[in-house]
Amino acid sequence: MNRRSFIRNTALVGTTAAAGVPQPAPAAEPTPRPAPPDATGTLARFIVSARFEDLPEAARTEAARSLLNWMGVAVGGSHHETIDIALAAVTPFAGPPQAGLFGRKERLDIMNAALLNGISSHVFDFDDTDLLTAVHPSAPVVPALLAMAEYRKVSGHDFVNAMVLGIEAECRIARAVTPAMQDVGWHATGAAGVFGAAVATAKILGLDQTRMCHAIGLAATQPVGLREMFGSMTKSFHPGRAAQNGMLAALLAEKGYTSSLHGIEAKRGWANVLSTEQHYDAITGDLGKTYEIFRNSYKPFACGLVVHAVIDGCIQLRNENKLTPDMIDRIDLAVHPIVLELTSKRNPRTGLEGKFSVYYAAAIAVIAGQAGEAQFSDAAVTDPVAVALRDRVETTIGKSLAQDQARVTIKLKDGRVLNRFITHAVGSVQVPMTNQQLEAKFTNLVAGILPDDRARHLIDLCWNVERSDDAGDIARAAAAA
Amino acid sequence: MNRRSFIRNTALVGTTAAAGVPQPAPAAEPTPRPAPPDATGTLARFIVSARFEDLPEAARTEAARSLLNWMGVAVGGSHHETIDIALAAVTPFAGPPQAGLFGRKERLDIMNAALLNGISSHVFDFDDTDLLTAVHPSAPVVPALLAMAEYRKVSGHDFVNAMVLGIEAECRIARAVTPAMQDVGWHATGAAGVFGAAVATAKILGLDQTRMCHAIGLAATQPVGLREMFGSMTKSFHPGRAAQNGMLAALLAEKGYTSSLHGIEAKRGWANVLSTEQHYDAITGDLGKTYEIFRNSYKPFACGLVVHAVIDGCIQLRNENKLTPDMIDRIDLAVHPIVLELTSKRNPRTGLEGKFSVYYAAAIAVIAGQAGEAQFSDAAVTDPVAVALRDRVETTIGKSLAQDQARVTIKLKDGRVLNRFITHAVGSVQVPMTNQQLEAKFTNLVAGILPDDRARHLIDLCWNVERSDDAGDIARAAAAA
Repeated sequence: MNRRSFIRNTALVGTTAAAGVPQPAPAAEPTPRPAPPDATGTLARFIVSARFEDLPEAARTEAARSLLNWMGVAVGGSHHETIDIALAAVTPFAGPPQAGLFGRKERLDIMNAALLNGISSHVFDFDDTDLLTAVHPSAPVVPALLAMAEYRKVSGHDFVNAMVLGIEAECRIARAVTPAMQDVGWHATGAAGVFGAAVATAKILGLDQTRMCHAIGLAATQPVGLREMFGSMTKSFHPGRAAQNGMLAALLAEKGYTSSLHGIEAKRGWANVLSTEQHYDAITGDLGKTYEIFRNSYKPFACGLVVHAVIDGCIQLRNENKLTPDMIDRIDLAVHPIVLELTSKRNPRTGLEGKFSVYYAAAIAVIAGQAGEAQFSDAAVTDPVAVALRDRVETTIGKSLAQDQARVTIKLKDGRVLNRFITHAVGSVQVPMTNQQLEAKFTNLVAGILPDDRARHLIDLCWNVERSDDAGDIARAAAAA
Repeated sequence: MNRRSFIRNTALVGTTAAAGVPQPAPAAEPTPRPAPPDATGTLARFIVSARFEDLPEAARTEAARSLLNWMGVAVGGSHHETIDIALAAVTPFAGPPQAGLFGRKERLDIMNAALLNGISSHVFDFDDTDLLTAVHPSAPVVPALLAMAEYRKVSGHDFVNAMVLGIEAECRIARAVTPAMQDVGWHATGAAGVFGAAVATAKILGLDQTRMCHAIGLAATQPVGLREMFGSMTKSFHPGRAAQNGMLAALLAEKGYTSSLHGIEAKRGWANVLSTEQHYDAITGDLGKTYEIFRNSYKPFACGLVVHAVIDGCIQLRNENKLTPDMIDRIDLAVHPIVLELTSKRNPRTGLEGKFSVYYAAAIAVIAGQAGEAQFSDAAVTDPVAVALRDRVETTIGKSLAQDQARVTIKLKDGRVLNRFITHAVGSVQVPMTNQQLEAKFTNLVAGILPDDRARHLIDLCWNVERSDDAGDIARAAAAA
């Protein structure tokens, strides 16, 4: 389209934003494309009619696991300086104390609570991941839903149904444009996550087909998040703002605010504007037959997935052989080249730098038997025992290894040589974290923030979410006393 | 970038959103581009150091004209159902009554007030326009600034300076990607307008260079608005949400929330992600030497610009010849083909349809001598006198005519033939509306919403904005008693 036709379609035609009169048809395309399927309408019909009773048990189970994992990282991140700063910025303008900040005492209106809890759950980048799309599925959906559940009573059935459907929407829509949208530069968790929050909220509100489409349209027009922001606090802003944008979309649509009925697939809709490729069958195919949440994965270690296989192997050998640092002569790691490309810091000096050091990661795994946020503090990374062992870690490139594989060889001072080959690290879809491991992760994250008995109560509430009369109890239990 | 490198850069590397450790360098580009200029930093430096005393008189004058025009459309649109719906949606979650809704009695927190006033100012699509970019410059900037000015005292000097600078930022950034960004499908007023609101708010807050860059980065990650939404209420949502997003960006940056320092020009920054072309000299060239606001234009008629030349010609002939409908035999219009392509509704039945009928537009111009919102009501469009005259309007295509030209020929029953050729319609940059015409437009728009004496007072406040001790007085005067 040239400048003339751009002007034709904008400044010259601008007029009242009321419904009724369609915009004049644009000039004919030189190479007309086949009309896309009615992705927005088809998805909306599925969401509107989907019932809790239709969910397979595996989806309900995974929802509880996702909720528990999400709540742990949200509470765990709640005292990060990122939250303190954001809270200071929004508090003077916030509404009534309708919903709590998890792990904290403050209460805000539901919109701002969702923003803050969404940021909090992503500051450690330790939340759940859909590896196909790089969407962190819970981060935009759960804070929106929990805020709604504190504001108006939501049953456990309705909560789980809305959560599964929100994740369904955002991950399907993201899949339709993956990897092209991410290559353009969008952060999928914010750019597609807004649909998750909108659909989940709209389902709680009981919107009909037309209003569900309007909510999706209002979400489509508010994508959040450029990948340029990775490495700054703005990255965790993305899921928080996506939660808020999605809630606003649903709440506006509920009152009759109109939008496009084809916000996803229209010529100038979300998929065409944000991405160079579109695969709409990812959105419309097999609805209700398979669920995106089946694919959800949880990180056992508080660092990039690229070093998880190394950590997993080290912990296995440590636990099986009751290793202590003084027993070890040296550790040899064979890894995929990407591991060295991304995490080859020899002398990390801060917790964050430690996350980019496969040497430190192997050492701390042997020393601590875990690799949570506590193991990536500044103090842990500079501890002399860790530094000494880290200096005895060597790496080689294993040419036949996949990205998520690693071979760990530990040579002991007594002459023994221990070996472990990791095919898939724990936390992958193939070797998911067990419920017990998820509980341990949760407990580590909330330690020092929630009392032990409160933490145990919150774990039980998450496991039993679908049997709850009032899912808002979960949010209330997650606030600091 | 292929799928492997996408995964490499996202899921595998995700980690804490603290500053300090740069992301690992991406794989080398096959065809490296020259590094873009430091557009974000250069713009920020200009904004941070720019003083009211540096503004040329023409910029200050145009700021007052823009403010008056904007306030008229904001008050005029304030009782549109779009506002009632949005207000119903946000009120339960809104914060303290810090800022007023113009033309109404309600007060909301500054964020929600900016959202609502931003929507209100665009529902008629009767606000100011930068014809180069199709940005409506005031719509994201002024509601943010007026809300801030009600919340904390802002002098007239600071208000005008921030307003000019906000418009400077959004229009320069939009120019850097026009028309490619609009062709991709973005609504420039929301997608670039967010920078206007962020920069204007950040200037009021007195942010330093680094925080100004962070505010720009936080704005960059929150563009609003797909062109698909044109024709629904969501179009006017765009400037309102852009105002709000920009304010949030500035308020977060003020407290120390970090973002990219290169949000505009980075490889995965705003300009590369939203547009297929980038001309950074539009952002960095001649800063402080020429001002975008010089180019601002105001619509005299409440319909698309495409029919403004016809209306202008009809009104001129009517006024010069004291025409009444019963004197007229027929009206012949020679117009550019685009006029018929876009506004050829022969039998409009609603006010909105009337905006898409050049026949009705010519008739009502002769009958009423104006074409404001009142002339595009359902009743006006179906009035028998208008219908009768409308049916006596004929059109031909004038092949040599430009888009903004028209030839109007009125044949009277007494045999006289009146001719008028319009080279540029009133309201264009070449034939700007006079101050008197802007006042008349304002008065028509606010009639029935604000009492006459209040309207007069508000006009005076707008003209004298730069001499105000407290620009919040303007906002307070614009609220309904």
